[in-house]
Amino acid sequence: MAAQQIREAVERYVQLVETGPTAEILALYAPDAVVEDPIGSDPRRGHAAIGELYDALAQVQRKTELHTLRINGNHAAVSFTLVTEAGGSRMTLSPIDVMEFDDDGRITGMRAYWGPDDMQVDKI
Amino acid sequence: MAAQQIREAVERYVQLVETGPTAEILALYAPDAVVEDPIGSDPRRGHAAIGELYDALAQVQRKTELHTLRINGNHAAVSFTLVTEAGGSRMTLSPIDVMEFDDDGRITGMRAYWGPDDMQVDKI
Repeated sequence: MAAQQIREAVERYVQLVETGPTAEILALYAPDAVVEDPIGSDPRRGHAAIGELYDALAQVQRKTELHTLRINGNHAAVSFTLVTEAGGSRMTLSPIDVMEFDDDGRITGMRAYWGPDDMQVDKI
Repeated sequence: MAAQQIREAVERYVQLVETGPTAEILALYAPDAVVEDPIGSDPRRGHAAIGELYDALAQVQRKTELHTLRINGNHAAVSFTLVTEAGGSRMTLSPIDVMEFDDDGRITGMRAYWGPDDMQVDKI
């Protein structure tokens, strides 16, 4: 796996978290991928379980910005900001996600580092 | 593990990477901790093997700055910058480290996300 291929996959991931659709996000994941979001929660295995996460996001207005991306071999860590707006509230969250890739460039594992203290909610 | 206890351990870690000594850094690690720095390299298990990493740093002038810290349960992810100076060269590296802690607040695992492209070297 070339670093450039992983870089493009992560950039596309952060972009798709903003725009959707869920199906295109899931296409970045291997079929048996495992996601822990946030880290420490029950792992979600496979596209159906993982898709629930992104379907929930699809209900709200959202915007993402990629900050820092680090890559080595089949591993990546990325910090980005997600801002969602719904029902008169703005939620801002800047997680650090770590991802592992298979040799086809698909995500086999993702763990999102953020805690309840990291979620900022404002009235708009 | 309270988030505050992990926060203080990570802040102390980043500070000690600047100041040393190695012994105090190792005191933050459980005896059988495993470190992968950078991620994908051979894991170092135990204080003796881990200490080699920080002993190498002890030979050079260094400065650290913590940027972002995310915590959930026994897990933390931190982005920080390390600047070292030695032999007329300045090396700047901003890794993203992920850490897992035991119930005593000691680091049981650390994986450092950075690649060769992320190390900037300048003449000084």
